[in-house]
Amino acid sequence: MSAAHGNNMNDYIYKCFDCGKTYGKDEIEKNLVYLCPTCGKVEKNQPLKGILLIEYDYESIKSKISKESFFNYELGRFWQYDFLWPLDSAKLASLQNELEKISLPSNCFQKLKYEGKEFFVLNDTGNPTLSFKDRASSLVALKALELGIGKIATASTGNAGSSLAGICARLGLKSIIFVPKNIPEAKRIQIQSFGAELVLVDGDYDLAFDTCLEISSQKKWYNRNTAYNPLTIEGKKSAAYDIFIALKGKLPNYIFVPTGDGVILSGLYKGFWELQKLGWIEELPKLIAAQAEGSNAFARYITKNKFEYESAVSIADSICSGAPRALFLGAKAIQQTHGKVIVVSDKEIIAAQKESAREFGILLEPSSSASFAAYKKFAEQEKLQNETALLLFTGNGLKDVSSLLKWNEKIIVLTPEQIKEKYL
Amino acid sequence: MSAAHGNNMNDYIYKCFDCGKTYGKDEIEKNLVYLCPTCGKVEKNQPLKGILLIEYDYESIKSKISKESFFNYELGRFWQYDFLWPLDSAKLASLQNELEKISLPSNCFQKLKYEGKEFFVLNDTGNPTLSFKDRASSLVALKALELGIGKIATASTGNAGSSLAGICARLGLKSIIFVPKNIPEAKRIQIQSFGAELVLVDGDYDLAFDTCLEISSQKKWYNRNTAYNPLTIEGKKSAAYDIFIALKGKLPNYIFVPTGDGVILSGLYKGFWELQKLGWIEELPKLIAAQAEGSNAFARYITKNKFEYESAVSIADSICSGAPRALFLGAKAIQQTHGKVIVVSDKEIIAAQKESAREFGILLEPSSSASFAAYKKFAEQEKLQNETALLLFTGNGLKDVSSLLKWNEKIIVLTPEQIKEKYL
Repeated sequence: MSAAHGNNMNDYIYKCFDCGKTYGKDEIEKNLVYLCPTCGKVEKNQPLKGILLIEYDYESIKSKISKESFFNYELGRFWQYDFLWPLDSAKLASLQNELEKISLPSNCFQKLKYEGKEFFVLNDTGNPTLSFKDRASSLVALKALELGIGKIATASTGNAGSSLAGICARLGLKSIIFVPKNIPEAKRIQIQSFGAELVLVDGDYDLAFDTCLEISSQKKWYNRNTAYNPLTIEGKKSAAYDIFIALKGKLPNYIFVPTGDGVILSGLYKGFWELQKLGWIEELPKLIAAQAEGSNAFARYITKNKFEYESAVSIADSICSGAPRALFLGAKAIQQTHGKVIVVSDKEIIAAQKESAREFGILLEPSSSASFAAYKKFAEQEKLQNETALLLFTGNGLKDVSSLLKWNEKIIVLTPEQIKEKYL
Repeated sequence: MSAAHGNNMNDYIYKCFDCGKTYGKDEIEKNLVYLCPTCGKVEKNQPLKGILLIEYDYESIKSKISKESFFNYELGRFWQYDFLWPLDSAKLASLQNELEKISLPSNCFQKLKYEGKEFFVLNDTGNPTLSFKDRASSLVALKALELGIGKIATASTGNAGSSLAGICARLGLKSIIFVPKNIPEAKRIQIQSFGAELVLVDGDYDLAFDTCLEISSQKKWYNRNTAYNPLTIEGKKSAAYDIFIALKGKLPNYIFVPTGDGVILSGLYKGFWELQKLGWIEELPKLIAAQAEGSNAFARYITKNKFEYESAVSIADSICSGAPRALFLGAKAIQQTHGKVIVVSDKEIIAAQKESAREFGILLEPSSSASFAAYKKFAEQEKLQNETALLLFTGNGLKDVSSLLKWNEKIIVLTPEQIKEKYL
């Protein structure tokens, strides 16, 4: 990545991660282009080629905003620093009441202690649809409002869909969600409840992805397919800024990231990279990708420097991805920050889910507890001393009660007499 | 209620709602007394007698704190104005990190629009356990910490129990939850996941209530039974303060309150009554109790001025109560504020649940959507013009996915060809 052109704080361009070509914003946005027009490619069971990244005029921003003044922005309200978002400032200013409806809770930042050691948490389980994905859905939805498009489509295994459906309902937009036919009932219900049009595709996520692309392109709906729409990565960078603000610039040494398609990794990296471009941080936190044993494409790619498709299976369905769409970008995030991949088993994920509910009072869905499981493993391997760590908690456990059913034992019914006998 | 004694801002006494006798705080708290020692009574299928209310030295507070300075406190962090809470200031000050873990989200206050008319919402569906009940559980748990008691017990039909279990896990306390044997599985799982000891009582909520009282009294556990422990009402008054702060004192004309046992009504009324004692508001908002047709004890009591037990049944299980524990106090809250009861059918509750998900992007459990259903009915009956209204949204719909299943239709699976045929 390199500095963008322009002399306006709000100026930005699109730049291809793979071939490096740059494009003006109108060329991309007004034509509903998502991947690089030169080298972009969607292939079955392959990572995406030609993901576009957004670059701002960092020199201009730097000359006008100081690091200290930046700390005055509130957590969870990223649009307040509109000069770092690909949105029209005037349009944004007219949306105050809408923005209030999609603001994230300011109590998302917490300090927890486990086995005598403290760590930080960015807890997104209280977001509007109880998921980190709201960060991406919100930015995409704001762009649709700006473009005057009333309908947004996405392919989803469940969570991105319920996030988009909920955010669209809050903003008065219509959503159309393409899901594979085997979607769990509870996730289907969340999507439908928000009034989304649900399209149950007779096939897997890949087929839902392709079908969604084809229909939305022809119908001129705005498309939120994860990694494909550059604003999904851009939206997730808000987590980097929230961490920066909450810690007043004293970033943790390690950040543990539940990793499936690589978009959270990519977004975080983008945010920290920008903070470095602005001269506000020197070093980037090491990004530690938490992957499930049955869905470890990043671990394999980093070791072999080569992608080979393997179908994925894990209890942590939100990070299950045989062909991570943002594999190359996510892997760069790990490598450039001197991070690594930690692979955890489903058993370790469940144990971490149980422990986080009991020790911290936070119900996590399995993909989120993967980051805690990876932290536990890493802390033991590396004998962490004074290094600081932050964990992303990305999804609420109530989005997937069935996983909680797996480890809570049945309780027997007792009469008052039996209860007295037991306790008194 | 009348002014309390003392010359310290943090001074408070307990006063019986029924007989008016007052008691020093040590006499009540150190002896683990909950109802009035003179007239308090727990009877089967009857409202509680002798509920204790806490009174502060309002004159002293008034002389030291101005209304304008009070608006600087943050939403969802009630302990910041410690002079209005029955807690030891020095102890509180030592608990900063713990308090952070139980803070409520500051984005709880929203302005929504329905059929062209705006109203406010206090949205507690993003609270730590996704429920309004966290307000009561938090205060009770802080008192247990102050008293040095490590175990808290409560009887619950599900929601109070999962709230107490989650808050206790966050604060390192142990919880023991007594529930009737027919508790829905999802609620059982939430309680157990947080590591609570679950006691499945072979009977109904009343039997769970009595059994919990007996065991916790003998074991010297702290007891959080709703309405019985005065801090449950006191904790819920925080909603009145949050509304006051969010609206900078310009209170709404009407507040719609999902009403089962009457404790939310009682807590809100207590909070507004205090604001009036402090001279910060002139008039109290009219409290409108939203009740389900099958659980309408308040409607019957207000009409006949007499309580007769009737068993209750409604899809809105959290406001299902045949014998509301805080009936007399809750009824006073309605009458003194010139409010009323609006009764809505289960069908109206479901329609409101659907509408709030689709129009506002907020998933509510049925008891919460009762307040929206009541608002809709009231707005139509009364032809509301310039009057302002606020609705309490008290519980997240994901706490009870089964209710969402009732109205979301099955979707048929389509092949890509069928999808193209449908849309293109």
